[in-house]
Amino acid sequence: MDTAECLKRVRERNPLVHHITNYVTVNDCANACLAVGGSPVMADALEEAADMSGISDALVLNIGTLNADKVKAMILAGKAANKKGIPVIFDPVGCGATSFRNRMAEELLKQVHMAVIRGNVSEIQSLAGKDAQTKGVDAGTTSGLDEAAATAKALALREKCIVIISGAKDIITDGNTTILITNGCPEMAQITGSGCMCTTVVGTFCAACSENLFDASKAAMMAMGISGEKAWAAYGVQGLGHFHMGLIDYLGKIDEEMIAKDGHFENG
Amino acid sequence: MDTAECLKRVRERNPLVHHITNYVTVNDCANACLAVGGSPVMADALEEAADMSGISDALVLNIGTLNADKVKAMILAGKAANKKGIPVIFDPVGCGATSFRNRMAEELLKQVHMAVIRGNVSEIQSLAGKDAQTKGVDAGTTSGLDEAAATAKALALREKCIVIISGAKDIITDGNTTILITNGCPEMAQITGSGCMCTTVVGTFCAACSENLFDASKAAMMAMGISGEKAWAAYGVQGLGHFHMGLIDYLGKIDEEMIAKDGHFENG
Amino acid sequence: MDTAECLKRVRERNPLVHHITNYVTVNDCANACLAVGGSPVMADALEEAADMSGISDALVLNIGTLNADKVKAMILAGKAANKKGIPVIFDPVGCGATSFRNRMAEELLKQVHMAVIRGNVSEIQSLAGKDAQTKGVDAGTTSGLDEAAATAKALALREKCIVIISGAKDIITDGNTTILITNGCPEMAQITGSGCMCTTVVGTFCAACSENLFDASKAAMMAMGISGEKAWAAYGVQGLGHFHMGLIDYLGKIDEEMIAKDGHFENG
Repeated sequence: MDTAECLKRVRERNPLVHHITNYVTVNDCANACLAVGGSPVMADALEEAADMSGISDALVLNIGTLNADKVKAMILAGKAANKKGIPVIFDPVGCGATSFRNRMAEELLKQVHMAVIRGNVSEIQSLAGKDAQTKGVDAGTTSGLDEAAATAKALALREKCIVIISGAKDIITDGNTTILITNGCPEMAQITGSGCMCTTVVGTFCAACSENLFDASKAAMMAMGISGEKAWAAYGVQGLGHFHMGLIDYLGKIDEEMIAKDGHFENG
Repeated sequence: MDTAECLKRVRERNPLVHHITNYVTVNDCANACLAVGGSPVMADALEEAADMSGISDALVLNIGTLNADKVKAMILAGKAANKKGIPVIFDPVGCGATSFRNRMAEELLKQVHMAVIRGNVSEIQSLAGKDAQTKGVDAGTTSGLDEAAATAKALALREKCIVIISGAKDIITDGNTTILITNGCPEMAQITGSGCMCTTVVGTFCAACSENLFDASKAAMMAMGISGEKAWAAYGVQGLGHFHMGLIDYLGKIDEEMIAKDGHFENG
Repeated sequence: MDTAECLKRVRERNPLVHHITNYVTVNDCANACLAVGGSPVMADALEEAADMSGISDALVLNIGTLNADKVKAMILAGKAANKKGIPVIFDPVGCGATSFRNRMAEELLKQVHMAVIRGNVSEIQSLAGKDAQTKGVDAGTTSGLDEAAATAKALALREKCIVIISGAKDIITDGNTTILITNGCPEMAQITGSGCMCTTVVGTFCAACSENLFDASKAAMMAMGISGEKAWAAYGVQGLGHFHMGLIDYLGKIDEEMIAKDGHFENG
């Protein structure tokens, strides 16, 4: 499915995307989902997590501010999503930083089949079992692109899913096919939530294009990267607060033409 | 009490508005309350919920990201607010989406007298007992204006309160008198929190004008609608992120003159 | 250490600042920390709070939306921070408003040594044991500058820490030396989170300049005040929403030259 077609489907289908996510960037995620063409719903009570996934088109699980109850709700929602056959998108925020976080992430992978995992390089390395030095959630790049891609492929094959590593070049792989998205700008790391919003955008595209999650992921990462580039070009001179708002602006304005003209990828 | 007078009182009295609300849009609600002239306080611990309502001028209960403990705190705060005689404003976010949410909303109505209930049409239909198809929290309009107004009136009479349904035309009714506010713009549904902020603005006006909650609700809905219109006119060309900020701008800038010139309503 | 040097160190060291904070303004705090040059991490699960402080350069504790579990996590994190020797910065949001809040604040002071306490005048008065009338978290100024400074000094000596009272003139004291920062603008009180962001900025500077917490606090309060002034000058005409974004803009843009030119303080 080509990238423009993916975006068109998101806008036409207006998919409902259930999030169990952190309280730091949840507002940004809701606005990113709405802007790009989805409908967000956030619900993490144990009593309704499964029911909410049962009426949704995708489930996003983000462990930014996890706790034991939230992980229980994620497992209930994840199992319901797996049963219904809707994609589950996992953001292992801060994985590698504490042993509790590592344990919870492992438990989630054991209990729920993830369709897509998206993180930065140290989070993905940690999840894949490599020693990684995590510095908060923005994480330092400790390995080169090839090593990161190899880790992503190994994790994708192990978990039978798509793995995305965000970075200067985003890696997308299902273990066999690998591509690199060269959109985006470094300033995205200077506002909180650009990683979380990225996962939400992937979730929204996957919700609308569940027939082809690889193409949906590619289109989502391009849409996010192009929006970041354009927002920085338009508002960088004003500063990070305006850039933040500009990112939401462009997630709403992005269209098939921008994607055709400005989307860039390489085979990895 | 005329609409301009209501706004004047909000600005003069700077009422304290206790919120027990969701973690998705709580920042927007706090900023909307401040901008329009109130003082927000958010506190949901079981140990202090009642005490905080006891020093406040109104209580806003919003079940967006509810859980069992949060509902307990809402009931404690609601009973304290009822005892003190300050208005309780209820936003049944996502009502109809899960049976847990429906049960919790019913429990709240049973334990706490609400002065005003504000929601979208499917949430109000669900609360009133009508079958409604809920699609997340933005909800699909399944019935025409007349049917919605009839549902609102029935709920208002049953709960002895004011019911507000937000939509292209906002319905405000106490069961006997019904008016329609024709301000606002459809783009408000494309940012998260416009419903929640609307409830907060109603709460802030009711806090300052508790002598006449119907007029306070009317003034609040006009202030919110006019702010939305003006923000879209000023920032729509930039996009949804800037529109979001513009909405807070205009909630702060709205004055008696704008309300007199741009506020529109019809008898329903 | 001079103020420009403090800012330089923040930018060079990019310190990791662990926050256990409220869900109302947490996004603003994360963005303020990033903009000024730090890396924020928010984690409040009992199982990882201590570990996260153990890899951080400072800990910010903010009781805005406290509950019993969150306070337990604060104590665990605080003890770990004390043990590691990193500064703990305490924001007693809403202290004085309810007896639960007062009790929890006292408990935190008993269990954790705070390096810096920052609040508004009524919060600091309450913490110091004076009767104070708290009106939400924006609090009314009930005493003049001299009385406030005397209270701050007494608390600083009792807790062996730096105390900061935000206001028209910010008071910074360690009980012996007292200075007043005259930067900032009254409109900062009209957006939620300016107090919380201020505490975060103090935490970020203290994380990078732990050798001299008094100078770090002074530099942080100046950086925050100057950013507020410049943001209001640039965006006040648009309104409070744009001012809010502008504040983040200027926290990112502030440099040694601005501080040298626009930073103002008096000996108290």
